[in-house]
Amino acid sequence: MQLVTIDDISAAADRIRGWVVRTPLIPAPWGDPERPLWLKPENLQAVGAFKVRGAFNAIARLDEATRARGVVAYSSGNHAQAVAYAAARFGISAAIVMPEETPGVKIAATRSHGAEVMLCAAGEREKIADEVVARTGGVLIPPFDHPDVIAGQGTVGLEIAEDLPDVANVIVPVSGGGLASGVGTAIKALAPGAEVIGVEPELAADTAEGLAAGHRVDWSIEDRNRTIADGLRSQPSALTFAHLQKVLDTLITVSENDIRSAVREIALSAHLVSEPSGATALAAYRSRDTPPGPTVLVVSGGNVEPALLAEILAP
Amino acid sequence: MQLVTIDDISAAADRIRGWVVRTPLIPAPWGDPERPLWLKPENLQAVGAFKVRGAFNAIARLDEATRARGVVAYSSGNHAQAVAYAAARFGISAAIVMPEETPGVKIAATRSHGAEVMLCAAGEREKIADEVVARTGGVLIPPFDHPDVIAGQGTVGLEIAEDLPDVANVIVPVSGGGLASGVGTAIKALAPGAEVIGVEPELAADTAEGLAAGHRVDWSIEDRNRTIADGLRSQPSALTFAHLQKVLDTLITVSENDIRSAVREIALSAHLVSEPSGATALAAYRSRDTPPGPTVLVVSGGNVEPALLAEILAP
Repeated sequence: MQLVTIDDISAAADRIRGWVVRTPLIPAPWGDPERPLWLKPENLQAVGAFKVRGAFNAIARLDEATRARGVVAYSSGNHAQAVAYAAARFGISAAIVMPEETPGVKIAATRSHGAEVMLCAAGEREKIADEVVARTGGVLIPPFDHPDVIAGQGTVGLEIAEDLPDVANVIVPVSGGGLASGVGTAIKALAPGAEVIGVEPELAADTAEGLAAGHRVDWSIEDRNRTIADGLRSQPSALTFAHLQKVLDTLITVSENDIRSAVREIALSAHLVSEPSGATALAAYRSRDTPPGPTVLVVSGGNVEPALLAEILAP
Repeated sequence: MQLVTIDDISAAADRIRGWVVRTPLIPAPWGDPERPLWLKPENLQAVGAFKVRGAFNAIARLDEATRARGVVAYSSGNHAQAVAYAAARFGISAAIVMPEETPGVKIAATRSHGAEVMLCAAGEREKIADEVVARTGGVLIPPFDHPDVIAGQGTVGLEIAEDLPDVANVIVPVSGGGLASGVGTAIKALAPGAEVIGVEPELAADTAEGLAAGHRVDWSIEDRNRTIADGLRSQPSALTFAHLQKVLDTLITVSENDIRSAVREIALSAHLVSEPSGATALAAYRSRDTPPGPTVLVVSGGNVEPALLAEILAP
């Protein structure tokens, strides 16, 4: 299987420059002294998540005639917004298939970029997206199972290595695995001494189980939907799993309470709004003994329902 | 009266580099199309506010023997944290006098940097700080009434002009006026075509009244304490008022409801936690017709009480 390379990621970085925010590393002096802490605030991207990186890279790579037919995506939220936003910037149409249980804030945001949104039952979204592709001739931009998407997300890792060459640990959430695959590939190439640590909710820990078993395992949608980290309910594809087997040094699972505490801590100490998925790296940092040394947490997104954030912040 | 110059601000930028975060301009595509919007997120500084800039510049300017006697400050909050944090980084002691009504989160944060905190009745803080100075021989670092503090805060404006040379409007909160004086001085020097727009709460609009009258006016502490924007309850000194007269093109006042809405919008659209004072620039942008063109809002700080933020976010 052909894996994404650092050259693919460097090319993606050149391609998406000007479209996405080059997020800074924010020093967090409230971390442990032995594990000095930086945050990579991908919640500051235009759509509130790292997903714009892969979406812009994948759409930019299409030839003009193909791109003009528009793009299609299925997503639980942030990838939907990212494709809708990138399509609007390219002046092309976007049709987005979203599961019914998607938080309302993410549906509204996707529509606000001019995309057509189709809601569907859980588990149906890939089938319906395929039907839209057949009907419109548009190009499917998958949420993670594509080299161009993985390379785009990998620019997060490239920037971390550029800004903090002596990074010792990078902690990154794992769902479908596009972000962790890309970040891990970049870090292993540019900062080979660093550990790449994945993090999953205990309630959606299929990848932790799969890595231990040496092959992908399938958790039911119903099981994975139990976590409040609604961005971490997907499972790796064969492509992303192969990357994760190669680039992850370890994978930590975190409880729902750990995740809630991390959302609160990021809001009050870092002054960043993170969605539950986006706070899991801090939950891992706080709940386990990650190794000493300069540590970067990827805060992957910030699209949280206001009511949930209010509940978490209330004393 | 000797006003701070762009050379003072450039020198401050060199002096504080490495101590403070060079915050990025975050594009905010959810702004008005005719007034494209960027945020300058000073809430991402280590203490959650721009105040570190002035504190580091003022302390760095002291000769070593003087600095070794420690520093003293009086502040309603963010300046206190900034001086405490900067003193800790310089390895010197800090004694901070804070009014009793200061939000608990700010008192705890100040103590967390190792500073000695003395609470006092409203209106007493300057007197008590003077007593501490007399007793310890420490150096008073004023919250705004000092050229080194103004020059340090001015680095916010210098960075805005560097990152967005064609900026048309910079909207900046006004309290004691250190931030607005410094930012306005930098913008008028480096982007002379840009408007510098101050913003105050209607309930603490002494500067709006003073600028209209052509001289400072005094509002009672009781009146100024009515606003939830607890960082905007100070009044300019003669020094900062002279700067504001020279560099502010206009000053907009905003209601308490405008401020609450802006805190909510910054959290949900920009994924940044701002304190009420820090959100006033967005309140001004939303409540009045500020001129067209690229607009930068200075999000001055993020130290908000969790209960207040939860209340504002609850649907």
